[in-house]
Parts: sequence; C-alpha cells; structure tokens
Amino acid sequence: MEKIESTKNAKVKLLMELQQKSAERRRRGLFVVEGRRELEHCMEAGYEVDTVFACPALYGHGNLPRASRIVEVTEQVYAHIAYRGTTEGIIAEVRAHETTLDSLFSPLAPSDSPLFVVLESVEKPGNLGAVLRSADAAGATAVIVCDPLTDLYNPNLIRSSIGALFTVPTVACSSEECIRLLKQHGVQILTAQLQDSLPYYDTPMTGATAIVMGTESTGLSPLWRQAADRHIRIPMLGRLDSLNVSVSAAILMFEAVRQREMHGKVRKG
Amino acid sequence: MEKIESTKNAKVKLLMELQQKSAERRRRGLFVVEGRRELEHCMEAGYEVDTVFACPALYGHGNLPRASRIVEVTEQVYAHIAYRGTTEGIIAEVRAHETTLDSLFSPLAPSDSPLFVVLESVEKPGNLGAVLRSADAAGATAVIVCDPLTDLYNPNLIRSSIGALFTVPTVACSSEECIRLLKQHGVQILTAQLQDSLPYYDTPMTGATAIVMGTESTGLSPLWRQAADRHIRIPMLGRLDSLNVSVSAAILMFEAVRQREMHGKVRKG
Repeated sequence: MEKIESTKNAKVKLLMELQQKSAERRRRGLFVVEGRRELEHCMEAGYEVDTVFACPALYGHGNLPRASRIVEVTEQVYAHIAYRGTTEGIIAEVRAHETTLDSLFSPLAPSDSPLFVVLESVEKPGNLGAVLRSADAAGATAVIVCDPLTDLYNPNLIRSSIGALFTVPTVACSSEECIRLLKQHGVQILTAQLQDSLPYYDTPMTGATAIVMGTESTGLSPLWRQAADRHIRIPMLGRLDSLNVSVSAAILMFEAVRQREMHGKVRKG
Repeated sequence: MEKIESTKNAKVKLLMELQQKSAERRRRGLFVVEGRRELEHCMEAGYEVDTVFACPALYGHGNLPRASRIVEVTEQVYAHIAYRGTTEGIIAEVRAHETTLDSLFSPLAPSDSPLFVVLESVEKPGNLGAVLRSADAAGATAVIVCDPLTDLYNPNLIRSSIGALFTVPTVACSSEECIRLLKQHGVQILTAQLQDSLPYYDTPMTGATAIVMGTESTGLSPLWRQAADRHIRIPMLGRLDSLNVSVSAAILMFEAVRQREMHGKVRKG
C-alpha cells in the first residue's frame, strides 16, 4: 500500500484542489467525502469510491471501504487534508454521478403523493445541506435545486447535510424544466411567499406536493410565483422578518408529514 | 470626538477582548453588538449602550445611537474590529443586564398560555442563536437556557440570532430552578425524546407549555425526563437519526402556533 508522509505529495495537492474548487470537481468528475458515516451513506447510495486516504493511527487498519485505490497517510498529513476538525481518519475521492429530473418522476405511481422540496438559487452551501438533513428526516421524495449558485458536491454542503446528500435524491436543474415536469405529473406547486398567501397550515399537502422556496434575501422569482397553485406563508409573530431557509423548509415539510399522518398516508416514525 | 486610527489603540484591544473572552465580559459587565439592526433591537429592549465605535466612511455621520461615548474609527481599524464580514460601520459595547426567571412569570395572567422553549446544556452558541431567531418568529414567551455551557452574550450567539437575543426574553438558570417555577405556575412540560414518546402533533399545546430540548449528542438529563408531563418526538422518516436542535425547536414551536391558531388563541401573522 502506498504511504504518503508529506503534505507536498502530488496526490495530496489534487485532493485539496477537489475540496476547494468546483471547476476542478467538474473537470475530474470527482468530489471529496470525509468521515466514516458520510462515506457509508455515500457507498450505500451506489457511489463509486475512487481513492481512499486512510490514517491508520486514527481509523485503524480493518474495515476499509472498497475502493480502486487505498493510500495510507500519516497523522500529520491527515491533519492537513481533513476538512473538518474530526479525527475519523478517513477521506475519499468519490466519482460524481448526476441524477436527472426525469429519474425522480419515472418510478412514481399516481397514488404515491410525492413530497418535493424545491430551492431556487440557494446561495449558501451550508443552508442547502441543512435543508437536505431535514428532508431526510421528513422522508421527502427528493430535493430539487433550481439554477443553483453552488455545485452539489461542495464540501460545506456535504458536511452540513451530515450525509443526507446521499440519502435524499438531489437534482440540480433549471426552473423552467422543473416547473414543466411538476405540472406534467400533476404535482401541486406551493410557493413560500408573503404576498397573497395563506398560512401554511391552512393548505392541504396530502396530495403530490412541491414546496418551493427562494433565497432569504430576494425570495422567489416571478417565474415560480406565476407557476404556483397556492402561495403559503409561515406566520411571523415576532419582531424579526425572516426565518432561516432550512428552518422554514423543515416547518413546511413536517406540516406535510403531519397532514399525511392524519390521513394515514405516512409510516409512523 | 475621539478618533482611533491604529489597531493597537488600548480601546480597540479592550473591545477585542470583550468579543473573544466570556470572562472579560463578566468582569466588565459589557458585551459587544455589531450591526445597525442588531443595535436597534438591543436599544429598543432597554439595554444601555456604553461606547459606540463608528466608521463614518461606512456608517455615515447622521443618526448615531445615543451612547455614553462615541468613538470614530478609520476603515482599517473597523475591518480589524468587525466580527462579521459586514460593512455596516457600527459596533458597540453594551452594558449587560440579567433577566431573572421570576420576571418571566410575574406578568403572566392565568389565561395567558405562555409558550416557553427550554434548552438544557446547549453546546454551540450558534445553535442557541438560531433557536432564538425561530422563537421570535413563533412569538414564544421566552427562551430559558438551563445549565448553559456558553454565556448569553457570546458574539456567535448574537450573530446567529440576528438580534433575537434582544427581542425574545432569554434567561439562564439551573434546571432545578426552572422545573420548580414551571410546575409552580402550572406550565406543562413537554420533553423532546424518543423513549416512551408520542408524535408531537398528537400532543395538545394550546395551554401553558414548555418545550424542553437537550443536546444533539446526549439528549436530556434524567432530571428533565422525570419532570416531564409528556414525552414528545419528531418522527424520523429517513436514514439519519437526528435533526439540528434549532430545526427541531422550530418544528415544535410552530406546531404550538398552529394549534393555538386553530383554537383562536394566536394573532394571525
């Protein structure tokens, strides 16, 4: 097994570039996953691991994941490449694969009542990761990111999702394409906005539903506002005027869970 | 007006210490608030501003808040003292004052149905700030932090609360004291935990209610579990096993909002 003892090693430099540059991730078709649990979720989701960087002093020698290449690194090198402050001792380069919007809809039966979360132009990778984490908990069908300003393999995103990027189908696409497919499959579009809106809990969500949210700063584009079947809002009862997007998404998704549970449409958690 | 042009100025050093050290905040009875809106909320809440550091190039000259002392700083000094990446041009040292647990209960009438959020031993100031932000939106009566591992004037807390620390009454106290007062005032205690729990939406929250949450890592202490009137859980329908504490708190608080709205007990947002 190859052993890397210097932070100046060429493989280490390539790994750091994958963490730091989305252009490099696109060019090489690879991204970086750090941590035992995250890597497990990633492999369970069918991703192919290219290179594993393991630090035996931290990770131990047994049970390394299947990978094309396994490289041993010293503790010093690991501290250099570790994106988080953890000491789990394992980082991997994983082959990217794209989920298409069509593939989300093709397995659905008419009675399935999918629950989609759509985020338009979300700015912060950490927010998107937090939405994914809540979407996993709410058993959402998928998270659709329209016209994203970040790639889905941003390390902040993966970290804040604590692996939910791999447990919840996630697709990046254009708003036009997303609206077309939602309409075509009879999914009601609920946009989170203040204007002309009803409180979210007065809105039925037991049928096929897409909850659509914009950015905290500018909200949703006219395209989505016009495509909406209903506008919904979370009542703001305090002095401040906004909630974090991942908090809003969770409140809305769990209202769908609650309503579906009342209608016997969801398994008990 | 005094003008500071060097980052080595003694006043600048004292300000930095207040930002970085909770012991220094305690010793001097001061804390730091940054940003126009945060400072507005802070002053509206009755806090007394001690020293304002203003950068005229960023803030402008007019409308400075009332303070015992106003100091002008250069852009270079401002960039040094600014805790966030913003360019709002105003940072202030503010006099701390403690809210007592008793003062939360004394103004309550029997029919008031207060909604408290109680956090036990919350670890990350950012999480506490995020809970405060959601508590503001949900119109919660107060947030009570039991046996905290951080002081309430931590800059990460203030920042992530986007000022909600000043719009929502917030108290730090011991768990014993908190349980005693909740029981004494007939407030039902709902603890968020998996064991022996009901889904949160099957639990009435229209009466006087305290939603109690532990840390993500270790959950609630036996003290709180035993003090509970009911145990409630958020169903986890995915592959991961936890939600962020601020997301959980928001889901539970807004269920109380929903139920109270259905009973005509809350104003429409």
